[in-house]
Amino acid sequence: MAVFLTDKVIALSQALSYDDHPFAAEARAAVYQAIFSRRDVRGQFQPDPIDDTVLARLLMAAHHAPSVGFMQPWNFLLVRSGDVRRRVHDLFAEANDEARAQFSGERRELYSRFKLEGILEAPLNLCITCDRERTGPVVLGRTHIKTMDLYSCVCAVQNLWLAARAEGLGVGWVSIFDPARLQTALGIPERIVPIAYLCIGRVSHFHDRPELEKAGWLPRLPVDELVYLDQWGQPAADDDPLIAALRAMRQDAAAGLWPV
Amino acid sequence: MAVFLTDKVIALSQALSYDDHPFAAEARAAVYQAIFSRRDVRGQFQPDPIDDTVLARLLMAAHHAPSVGFMQPWNFLLVRSGDVRRRVHDLFAEANDEARAQFSGERRELYSRFKLEGILEAPLNLCITCDRERTGPVVLGRTHIKTMDLYSCVCAVQNLWLAARAEGLGVGWVSIFDPARLQTALGIPERIVPIAYLCIGRVSHFHDRPELEKAGWLPRLPVDELVYLDQWGQPAADDDPLIAALRAMRQDAAAGLWPV
Repeated sequence: MAVFLTDKVIALSQALSYDDHPFAAEARAAVYQAIFSRRDVRGQFQPDPIDDTVLARLLMAAHHAPSVGFMQPWNFLLVRSGDVRRRVHDLFAEANDEARAQFSGERRELYSRFKLEGILEAPLNLCITCDRERTGPVVLGRTHIKTMDLYSCVCAVQNLWLAARAEGLGVGWVSIFDPARLQTALGIPERIVPIAYLCIGRVSHFHDRPELEKAGWLPRLPVDELVYLDQWGQPAADDDPLIAALRAMRQDAAAGLWPV
Repeated sequence: MAVFLTDKVIALSQALSYDDHPFAAEARAAVYQAIFSRRDVRGQFQPDPIDDTVLARLLMAAHHAPSVGFMQPWNFLLVRSGDVRRRVHDLFAEANDEARAQFSGERRELYSRFKLEGILEAPLNLCITCDRERTGPVVLGRTHIKTMDLYSCVCAVQNLWLAARAEGLGVGWVSIFDPARLQTALGIPERIVPIAYLCIGRVSHFHDRPELEKAGWLPRLPVDELVYLDQWGQPAADDDPLIAALRAMRQDAAAGLWPV
Protein backbone atom coordinates (compact mmCIF):
# COMPACT_ATOMS: atom_id res chain seq x y z
CA MET A 1 0.00 0.00 0.00
CA ALA A 2 2.95 2.23 0.62
CA VAL A 3 1.15 4.95 2.50
CA PHE A 4 4.16 5.69 4.63
CA LEU A 5 6.02 7.91 2.23
CA THR A 6 6.03 8.22 -1.52
CA ASP A 7 7.46 5.30 -3.49
CA LYS A 8 10.51 7.43 -4.20
CA VAL A 9 11.17 7.95 -0.54
CA ILE A 10 10.67 4.28 0.21
CA ALA A 11 13.26 3.42 -2.41
CA LEU A 12 15.69 5.96 -0.97
CA SER A 13 15.06 4.65 2.46
CA GLN A 14 15.63 1.03 1.47
CA ALA A 15 18.85 2.03 -0.22
CA LEU A 16 20.25 3.09 3.14
CA SER A 17 21.46 -0.09 4.72
CA TYR A 18 21.67 -0.93 8.41
CA ASP A 19 25.40 -1.16 8.53
CA ASP A 20 28.23 0.64 10.24
CA HIS A 21 28.58 3.41 7.70
CA PRO A 22 27.46 6.97 8.28
CA PHE A 23 24.61 8.33 6.17
CA ALA A 24 25.55 10.09 2.94
CA ALA A 25 26.45 13.78 3.37
CA GLU A 26 23.04 15.01 2.15
CA ALA A 27 21.19 12.72 4.54
CA ARG A 28 23.36 13.76 7.48
CA ALA A 29 22.72 17.41 6.64
CA ALA A 30 18.97 16.75 6.70
CA VAL A 31 19.13 15.22 10.17
CA TYR A 32 21.13 18.18 11.51
CA GLN A 33 18.81 20.60 9.72
CA ALA A 34 15.84 19.10 11.59
CA ILE A 35 17.73 19.31 14.88
CA PHE A 36 18.97 22.89 14.44
CA SER A 37 15.86 24.42 12.88
CA ARG A 38 13.31 22.81 15.23
CA ARG A 39 11.50 25.49 17.23
CA ASP A 40 9.08 25.63 20.14
CA VAL A 41 6.17 27.21 18.28
CA ARG A 42 3.62 29.34 20.11
CA GLY A 43 2.42 32.10 17.85
CA GLN A 44 2.66 31.12 14.18
CA PHE A 45 0.04 28.38 13.84
CA GLN A 46 -2.17 28.23 10.75
CA PRO A 47 -5.65 26.75 11.16
CA ASP A 48 -5.67 24.23 8.29
CA PRO A 49 -5.98 20.63 9.45
CA ILE A 50 -3.06 18.20 9.49
CA ASP A 51 -3.09 15.49 6.84
CA ASP A 52 -3.84 12.18 8.57
CA THR A 53 -1.06 10.35 6.74
CA VAL A 54 1.44 12.94 7.94
CA LEU A 55 0.09 12.71 11.49
CA ALA A 56 0.35 8.92 11.31
CA ARG A 57 4.03 9.27 10.39
CA LEU A 58 4.59 11.56 13.37
CA LEU A 59 2.97 9.09 15.76
CA MET A 60 4.97 6.25 14.22
CA ALA A 61 8.16 8.29 14.76
CA ALA A 62 7.19 8.81 18.42
CA HIS A 63 6.36 5.11 18.80
CA HIS A 64 9.86 4.19 17.66
CA ALA A 65 11.58 6.10 20.43
CA PRO A 66 13.86 4.10 22.73
CA SER A 67 11.94 2.72 25.70
CA VAL A 68 13.35 1.18 28.83
CA GLY A 69 12.90 -2.61 28.75
CA PHE A 70 11.00 -2.11 25.44
CA MET A 71 7.93 -1.25 27.57
CA GLN A 72 6.60 1.43 25.17
CA PRO A 73 4.80 3.15 28.03
CA TRP A 74 3.26 5.96 25.98
CA ASN A 75 -0.26 6.78 24.84
CA PHE A 76 -1.24 9.48 22.36
CA LEU A 77 -4.29 11.45 23.45
CA LEU A 78 -5.35 13.60 20.51
CA VAL A 79 -7.37 16.64 21.48
CA ARG A 80 -9.52 17.73 18.57
CA SER A 81 -12.57 18.91 20.56
CA GLY A 82 -12.92 22.68 20.85
CA ASP A 83 -14.62 22.33 24.23
CA VAL A 84 -11.78 20.33 25.74
CA ARG A 85 -9.22 22.73 24.31
CA ARG A 86 -11.04 25.74 25.76
CA ARG A 87 -11.01 24.02 29.17
CA VAL A 88 -7.28 23.36 28.82
CA HIS A 89 -6.72 26.94 27.71
CA ASP A 90 -8.53 28.20 30.83
CA LEU A 91 -6.17 26.12 32.96
CA PHE A 92 -3.21 27.62 31.14
CA ALA A 93 -4.48 31.20 31.62
CA GLU A 94 -4.95 30.65 35.35
CA ALA A 95 -1.54 29.03 35.83
CA ASN A 96 0.13 31.68 33.70
CA ASP A 97 -1.19 34.44 36.00
CA GLU A 98 0.38 32.59 38.93
CA ALA A 99 3.60 32.08 36.96
CA ARG A 100 3.89 35.75 35.96
CA ALA A 101 3.55 36.78 39.61
CA GLN A 102 6.72 34.82 40.42
CA PHE A 103 8.81 37.26 38.37
CA SER A 104 9.29 40.89 39.26
CA GLY A 105 10.17 44.24 37.69
CA GLU A 106 11.46 44.17 34.12
CA ARG A 107 11.40 40.37 33.98
CA ARG A 108 7.69 40.35 34.78
CA GLU A 109 7.04 42.94 32.10
CA LEU A 110 9.00 40.95 29.53
CA TYR A 111 7.26 37.72 30.62
CA SER A 112 3.87 39.39 30.11
CA ARG A 113 4.71 40.11 26.50
CA PHE A 114 5.48 36.47 25.63
CA LYS A 115 2.92 34.32 23.88
CA LEU A 116 3.50 30.92 25.48
CA GLU A 117 0.98 28.58 23.84
CA GLY A 118 -1.09 27.98 20.72
CA ILE A 119 -3.78 25.75 22.27
CA LEU A 120 -6.72 27.26 20.41
CA GLU A 121 -4.99 28.36 17.20
CA ALA A 122 -3.19 25.10 16.36
CA PRO A 123 -5.43 22.61 14.52
CA LEU A 124 -4.44 19.79 16.89
CA ASN A 125 -3.38 19.31 20.50
CA LEU A 126 -1.74 16.07 21.64
CA CYS A 127 -1.01 14.85 25.14
CA ILE A 128 1.71 12.18 25.35
CA THR A 129 1.40 10.18 28.57
CA CYS A 130 3.32 7.52 30.50
CA ASP A 131 1.69 4.33 31.83
CA ARG A 132 4.16 3.32 34.50
CA GLU A 133 2.57 -0.10 35.00
CA ARG A 134 2.25 -1.08 31.36
CA THR A 135 4.39 -4.21 31.69
CA GLY A 136 4.08 -4.90 35.42
CA PRO A 137 6.06 -3.65 38.39
CA VAL A 138 9.52 -4.94 37.41
CA VAL A 139 10.95 -3.45 34.24
CA LEU A 140 14.31 -4.36 32.71
CA GLY A 141 16.49 -1.24 33.05
CA ARG A 142 14.14 0.50 35.52
CA THR A 143 15.06 -1.54 38.58
CA HIS A 144 17.45 1.12 39.91
CA ILE A 145 16.53 4.39 38.17
CA LYS A 146 12.78 4.72 38.54
CA THR A 147 12.35 7.67 36.20
CA MET A 148 13.53 5.77 33.10
CA ASP A 149 9.99 5.19 31.80
CA LEU A 150 9.20 8.91 32.04
CA TYR A 151 12.39 9.60 30.11
CA SER A 152 11.38 7.11 27.41
CA CYS A 153 8.22 9.13 26.80
CA VAL A 154 10.27 12.33 26.49
CA CYS A 155 12.34 10.62 23.79
CA ALA A 156 9.05 9.94 21.99
CA VAL A 157 8.20 13.64 22.20
CA GLN A 158 11.54 14.62 20.69
CA ASN A 159 11.22 12.07 17.86
CA LEU A 160 7.80 13.49 16.99
CA TRP A 161 9.08 17.06 17.21
CA LEU A 162 11.95 16.44 14.76
CA ALA A 163 9.75 14.48 12.33
CA ALA A 164 7.24 17.34 12.46
CA ARG A 165 9.95 19.85 11.55
CA ALA A 166 10.90 17.74 8.54
CA GLU A 167 7.21 17.67 7.53
CA GLY A 168 7.02 21.47 7.83
CA LEU A 169 4.82 21.34 10.96
CA GLY A 170 5.40 23.35 14.10
CA VAL A 171 5.16 21.89 17.59
CA GLY A 172 4.88 23.78 20.89
CA TRP A 173 5.22 22.13 24.32
CA VAL A 174 2.94 23.84 26.85
CA SER A 175 4.00 23.29 30.46
CA ILE A 176 2.21 26.04 32.37
CA PHE A 177 -0.67 24.09 33.98
CA ASP A 178 -1.56 22.66 37.34
CA PRO A 179 -0.82 19.06 36.29
CA ALA A 180 -3.59 17.53 38.44
CA ARG A 181 -6.20 19.79 36.87
CA LEU A 182 -4.90 19.08 33.36
CA GLN A 183 -5.26 15.41 34.16
CA THR A 184 -8.89 15.94 35.22
CA ALA A 185 -9.69 17.96 32.10
CA LEU A 186 -8.46 15.08 29.93
CA GLY A 187 -9.94 12.30 32.08
CA ILE A 188 -6.47 10.86 32.69
CA PRO A 189 -6.40 8.47 35.69
CA GLU A 190 -4.04 9.19 38.58
CA ARG A 191 -1.71 6.28 37.80
CA ILE A 192 -0.93 7.74 34.32
CA VAL A 193 1.58 10.61 34.06
CA PRO A 194 0.96 13.28 31.42
CA ILE A 195 4.43 13.99 30.02
CA ALA A 196 3.87 16.63 27.35
CA TYR A 197 0.95 18.72 26.15
CA LEU A 198 1.74 19.64 22.55
CA CYS A 199 0.19 22.03 20.03
CA ILE A 200 0.78 20.94 16.43
CA GLY A 201 0.08 22.53 13.08
CA ARG A 202 1.30 24.22 9.97
CA VAL A 203 3.03 27.52 10.71
CA SER A 204 3.39 30.82 8.87
CA HIS A 205 7.16 30.63 9.49
CA PHE A 206 9.78 29.19 11.82
CA HIS A 207 11.89 31.64 13.81
CA ASP A 208 15.58 31.57 12.91
CA ARG A 209 16.51 31.26 16.61
CA PRO A 210 14.60 30.33 19.79
CA GLU A 211 12.20 33.12 20.73
CA LEU A 212 13.49 33.46 24.29
CA GLU A 213 17.01 33.92 22.93
CA LYS A 214 15.85 36.55 20.42
CA ALA A 215 13.94 38.42 23.12
CA GLY A 216 17.02 38.55 25.36
CA TRP A 217 15.44 36.41 28.10
CA LEU A 218 18.61 34.30 28.33
CA PRO A 219 21.64 33.89 26.05
CA ARG A 220 22.76 30.72 24.28
CA LEU A 221 25.49 29.20 26.49
CA PRO A 222 28.91 28.42 24.97
CA VAL A 223 28.72 24.64 24.65
CA ASP A 224 32.47 24.13 25.18
CA GLU A 225 32.08 25.53 28.71
CA LEU A 226 29.56 22.79 29.53
CA VAL A 227 32.01 19.95 28.90
CA TYR A 228 33.80 18.15 31.73
CA LEU A 229 36.34 15.36 31.51
CA ASP A 230 36.27 12.19 33.66
CA GLN A 231 35.07 14.00 36.81
CA TRP A 232 32.48 16.72 37.42
CA GLY A 233 34.01 20.21 37.36
CA GLN A 234 37.18 19.12 35.57
CA PRO A 235 37.42 20.97 32.25
CA ALA A 236 39.17 19.47 29.26
CA ALA A 237 42.51 21.06 28.36
CA ASP A 238 42.30 24.25 26.33
CA ASP A 239 44.11 22.55 23.46
CA ASP A 240 41.95 19.42 23.59
CA PRO A 241 40.91 18.81 19.95
CA LEU A 242 37.26 18.42 20.97
CA ILE A 243 37.19 21.83 22.65
CA ALA A 244 38.97 23.36 19.66
CA ALA A 245 36.36 21.82 17.33
CA LEU A 246 33.48 23.12 19.45
CA ARG A 247 34.94 26.64 19.48
CA ALA A 248 35.54 26.60 15.74
CA MET A 249 31.93 25.50 15.24
CA ARG A 250 30.69 28.39 17.34
CA GLN A 251 32.74 30.79 15.22
CA ASP A 252 31.32 29.21 12.07
CA ALA A 253 27.82 29.70 13.42
CA ALA A 254 28.51 33.35 14.26
CA ALA A 255 29.78 33.81 10.71
CA GLY A 256 26.55 32.32 9.34
CA LEU A 257 28.29 29.24 7.95
CA TRP A 258 25.71 26.96 9.48
CA PRO A 259 22.27 27.85 10.56
CA VAL A 260 22.02 27.88 14.34
CA MET B 1 36.66 27.60 8.89
CA ALA B 2 33.70 25.44 8.13
CA VAL B 3 34.59 22.59 10.42
CA PHE B 4 30.96 21.75 11.04
CA LEU B 5 30.34 19.72 7.94
CA THR B 6 31.92 19.59 4.54
CA ASP B 7 31.42 22.66 2.33
CA LYS B 8 28.99 20.64 0.26
CA VAL B 9 26.83 19.88 3.26
CA ILE B 10 26.92 23.50 4.39
CA ALA B 11 25.68 24.57 0.97
CA LEU B 12 22.91 21.97 1.09
CA SER B 13 22.01 23.06 4.56
CA GLN B 14 21.84 26.74 3.63
CA ALA B 15 19.66 25.90 0.66
CA LEU B 16 16.99 24.61 3.04
CA SER B 17 15.15 27.73 4.14
CA TYR B 18 13.41 28.32 7.46
CA ASP B 19 9.93 28.62 6.06
CA ASP B 20 6.67 26.76 6.30
CA HIS B 21 7.47 24.18 3.68
CA PRO B 22 8.29 20.56 4.45
CA PHE B 23 11.79 19.31 3.69
CA ALA B 24 12.32 17.74 0.27
CA ALA B 25 11.39 14.04 0.04
CA GLU B 26 15.00 12.88 0.30
CA ALA B 27 15.64 14.98 3.39
CA ARG B 28 12.44 13.78 5.08
CA ALA B 29 13.44 10.19 4.35
CA ALA B 30 16.80 10.80 6.04
CA VAL B 31 15.17 12.11 9.20
CA TYR B 32 12.84 9.09 9.37
CA GLN B 33 15.72 6.77 8.61
CA ALA B 34 17.62 8.11 11.63
CA ILE B 35 14.51 7.72 13.79
CA PHE B 36 13.62 4.19 12.65
CA SER B 37 17.12 2.72 12.47
CA ARG B 38 18.40 4.16 15.77
CA ARG B 39 19.25 1.33 18.19
CA ASP B 40 20.22 0.98 21.83
CA VAL B 41 23.67 -0.53 21.27
CA ARG B 42 25.21 -2.79 23.88
CA GLY B 43 27.29 -5.42 22.17
CA GLN B 44 28.60 -4.23 18.81
CA PHE B 45 31.12 -1.53 19.76
CA GLN B 46 34.41 -1.20 17.91
CA PRO B 47 37.38 0.21 19.83
CA ASP B 48 38.58 2.90 17.38
CA PRO B 49 38.32 6.43 18.79
CA ILE B 50 35.62 8.87 17.75
CA ASP B 51 36.73 11.74 15.53
CA ASP B 52 36.63 14.94 17.61
CA THR B 53 34.86 16.90 14.89
CA VAL B 54 32.12 14.28 14.76
CA LEU B 55 31.85 14.28 18.56
CA ALA B 56 31.64 18.08 18.52
CA ARG B 57 28.69 17.83 16.11
CA LEU B 58 26.96 15.36 18.43
CA LEU B 59 27.39 17.67 21.44
CA MET B 60 26.18 20.63 19.38
CA ALA B 61 23.09 18.60 18.40
CA ALA B 62 22.43 17.84 22.07
CA HIS B 63 22.98 21.50 23.00
CA HIS B 64 20.28 22.54 20.54
CA ALA B 65 17.57 20.50 22.20
CA PRO B 66 14.52 22.37 23.44
CA SER B 67 14.98 23.54 27.03
CA VAL B 68 12.35 24.93 29.36
CA GLY B 69 12.74 28.69 29.72
CA PHE B 70 15.88 28.38 27.50
CA MET B 71 17.77 27.34 30.64
CA GLN B 72 20.03 24.79 28.87
CA PRO B 73 20.48 22.88 32.13
CA TRP B 74 22.78 20.19 30.74
CA ASN B 75 26.45 19.37 31.15
CA PHE B 76 28.42 16.82 29.16
CA LEU B 77 30.76 14.74 31.31
CA LEU B 78 32.98 12.77 28.96
CA VAL B 79 34.44 9.65 30.50
CA ARG B 80 37.64 8.69 28.71
CA SER B 81 39.59 7.36 31.72
CA GLY B 82 39.82 3.59 31.90
CA ASP B 83 39.92 3.70 35.71
CA VAL B 84 36.71 5.66 35.99
CA ARG B 85 35.02 3.37 33.48
CA ARG B 86 36.08 0.27 35.37
CA ARG B 87 34.61 1.77 38.55
CA VAL B 88 31.36 2.50 36.70
CA HIS B 89 31.37 -1.00 35.24
CA ASP B 90 31.71 -2.47 38.74
CA LEU B 91 28.65 -0.49 39.81
CA PHE B 92 26.75 -1.85 36.82
CA ALA B 93 27.76 -5.45 37.59
CA GLU B 94 26.60 -5.15 41.19
CA ALA B 95 23.30 -3.52 40.28
CA ASN B 96 22.71 -6.00 37.50
CA ASP B 97 22.96 -8.91 39.96
CA GLU B 98 20.28 -7.23 42.06
CA ALA B 99 18.19 -6.55 38.96
CA ARG B 100 18.39 -10.14 37.73
CA ALA B 101 17.18 -11.40 41.09
CA GLN B 102 13.94 -9.46 40.63
CA PHE B 103 12.94 -11.72 37.74
CA SER B 104 12.16 -15.40 38.11
CA GLY B 105 12.08 -18.63 36.13
CA GLU B 106 12.38 -18.33 32.36
CA ARG B 107 12.46 -14.53 32.48
CA ARG B 108 15.49 -14.61 34.75
CA GLU B 109 17.23 -17.04 32.46
CA LEU B 110 16.52 -14.87 29.42
CA TYR B 111 17.60 -11.75 31.35
CA SER B 112 20.92 -13.42 32.21
CA ARG B 113 21.66 -13.92 28.54
CA PHE B 114 21.30 -10.22 27.66
CA LYS B 115 24.34 -8.00 27.27
CA LEU B 116 23.09 -4.71 28.68
CA GLU B 117 26.02 -2.30 28.39
CA GLY B 118 29.22 -1.55 26.48
CA ILE B 119 30.98 0.56 29.14
CA LEU B 120 34.44 -0.89 28.60
CA GLU B 121 34.24 -1.76 24.90
CA ALA B 122 32.94 1.58 23.60
CA PRO B 123 35.70 4.14 23.02
CA LEU B 124 33.78 6.82 24.91
CA ASN B 125 31.29 7.11 27.77
CA LEU B 126 29.26 10.28 28.31
CA CYS B 127 27.10 11.29 31.23
CA ILE B 128 24.52 13.98 30.45
CA THR B 129 23.42 15.78 33.61
CA CYS B 130 20.83 18.35 34.73
CA ASP B 131 21.70 21.43 36.80
CA ARG B 132 18.32 22.30 38.25
CA GLU B 133 19.50 25.67 39.59
CA ARG B 134 21.32 26.85 36.47
CA THR B 135 19.21 29.99 36.05
CA GLY B 136 17.90 30.47 39.60
CA PRO B 137 14.88 29.06 41.39
CA VAL B 138 12.12 30.46 39.11
CA VAL B 139 12.20 29.17 35.55
CA LEU B 140 9.79 30.21 32.79
CA GLY B 141 7.69 27.11 31.99
CA ARG B 142 8.81 25.21 35.12
CA THR B 143 6.65 27.05 37.63
CA HIS B 144 3.96 24.34 37.67
CA ILE B 145 5.57 21.18 36.29
CA LYS B 146 8.82 20.78 38.19
CA THR B 147 10.23 17.97 36.05
CA MET B 148 10.45 20.07 32.88
CA ASP B 149 14.20 20.68 33.23
CA LEU B 150 14.87 16.95 33.55
CA TYR B 151 12.79 16.41 30.41
CA SER B 152 14.83 19.06 28.54
CA CYS B 153 17.97 17.02 29.22
CA VAL B 154 16.29 13.89 27.87
CA CYS B 155 15.53 15.78 24.65
CA ALA B 156 19.26 16.53 24.46
CA VAL B 157 19.99 12.81 24.78
CA GLN B 158 17.60 11.97 21.95
CA ASN B 159 19.06 14.68 19.67
CA LEU B 160 22.54 13.26 20.25
CA TRP B 161 21.33 9.71 19.69
CA LEU B 162 19.76 10.51 16.30
CA ALA B 163 22.75 12.59 15.15
CA ALA B 164 25.01 9.69 16.15
CA ARG B 165 22.95 7.29 14.04
CA ALA B 166 23.34 9.59 11.03
CA GLU B 167 27.11 9.67 11.69
CA GLY B 168 27.22 5.86 11.81
CA LEU B 169 27.89 5.77 15.56
CA GLY B 170 26.07 3.58 18.04
CA VAL B 171 24.80 4.81 21.40
CA GLY B 172 23.68 2.72 24.37
CA TRP B 173 21.90 4.16 27.42
CA VAL B 174 22.93 2.27 30.58
CA SER B 175 20.45 2.64 33.44
CA ILE B 176 21.30 -0.25 35.75
CA PHE B 177 23.21 1.54 38.52
CA ASP B 178 22.59 2.75 42.03
CA PRO B 179 22.30 6.42 40.98
CA ALA B 180 23.89 7.78 44.19
CA ARG B 181 26.95 5.59 43.73
CA LEU B 182 27.23 6.52 40.05
CA GLN B 183 27.17 10.13 41.16
CA THR B 184 30.02 9.49 43.62
CA ALA B 185 32.09 7.65 41.01
CA LEU B 186 31.86 10.67 38.70
CA GLY B 187 32.25 13.29 41.45
CA ILE B 188 28.84 14.75 40.62
CA PRO B 189 27.46 16.94 43.45
CA GLU B 190 24.11 16.09 45.02
CA ARG B 191 22.30 19.07 43.50
CA ILE B 192 23.08 17.83 39.96
CA VAL B 193 20.96 15.02 38.48
CA PRO B 194 22.66 12.50 36.19
CA ILE B 195 20.11 11.93 33.42
CA ALA B 196 21.78 9.46 31.08
CA TYR B 197 24.98 7.40 31.10
CA LEU B 198 25.79 6.71 27.45
CA CYS B 199 28.29 4.46 25.68
CA ILE B 200 29.24 5.79 22.24
CA GLY B 201 31.31 4.37 19.42
CA ARG B 202 31.53 2.90 15.97
CA VAL B 203 29.70 -0.42 15.73
CA SER B 204 30.17 -3.59 13.70
CA HIS B 205 26.49 -3.39 12.70
CA PHE B 206 23.14 -2.06 13.79
CA HIS B 207 20.42 -4.59 14.56
CA ASP B 208 17.45 -4.42 12.20
CA ARG B 209 15.04 -4.32 15.17
CA PRO B 210 15.42 -3.61 18.90
CA GLU B 211 17.24 -6.50 20.59
CA LEU B 212 14.58 -7.02 23.25
CA GLU B 213 11.98 -7.34 20.50
CA LYS B 214 14.11 -9.83 18.56
CA ALA B 215 14.73 -11.89 21.71
CA GLY B 216 11.00 -12.14 22.43
CA TRP B 217 11.24 -10.19 25.70
CA LEU B 218 8.25 -8.04 24.70
CA PRO B 219 6.45 -7.47 21.38
CA ARG B 220 6.13 -4.18 19.49
CA LEU B 221 2.71 -2.76 20.43
CA PRO B 222 0.24 -1.85 17.65
CA VAL B 223 0.49 1.95 17.69
CA ASP B 224 -3.14 2.48 16.62
CA GLU B 225 -4.24 0.86 19.89
CA LEU B 226 -2.35 3.50 21.87
CA VAL B 227 -4.34 6.41 20.43
CA TYR B 228 -7.19 8.07 22.34
CA LEU B 229 -9.44 10.90 21.25
CA ASP B 230 -10.32 13.94 23.41
CA GLN B 231 -10.55 11.92 26.66
CA TRP B 232 -8.41 9.13 28.15
CA GLY B 233 -9.71 5.68 27.23
CA GLN B 234 -11.87 6.90 24.35
CA PRO B 235 -10.65 5.25 21.14
CA ALA B 236 -10.99 6.97 17.78
CA ALA B 237 -13.64 5.48 15.47
CA ASP B 238 -12.56 2.42 13.52
CA ASP B 239 -12.99 4.32 10.26
CA ASP B 240 -11.13 7.40 11.50
CA PRO B 241 -8.68 8.21 8.68
CA LEU B 242 -5.78 8.49 11.15
CA ILE B 243 -6.39 5.00 12.50
CA ALA B 244 -6.72 3.68 8.94
CA ALA B 245 -3.40 5.32 8.02
CA LEU B 246 -1.64 3.85 11.08
CA ARG B 247 -2.95 0.35 10.27
CA ALA B 248 -1.92 0.63 6.65
CA MET B 249 1.54 1.72 7.79
CA ARG B 250 1.82 -1.31 10.05
CA GLN B 251 0.89 -3.55 7.11
CA ASP B 252 3.48 -1.82 4.95
CA ALA B 253 6.10 -2.43 7.62
CA ALA B 254 5.14 -6.11 7.86
CA ALA B 255 5.51 -6.34 4.09
CA GLY B 256 9.00 -4.82 4.29
CA LEU B 257 7.96 -1.63 2.48
CA TRP B 258 9.64 0.50 5.11
CA PRO B 259 12.27 -0.52 7.52
CA VAL B 260 10.90 -0.73 11.03
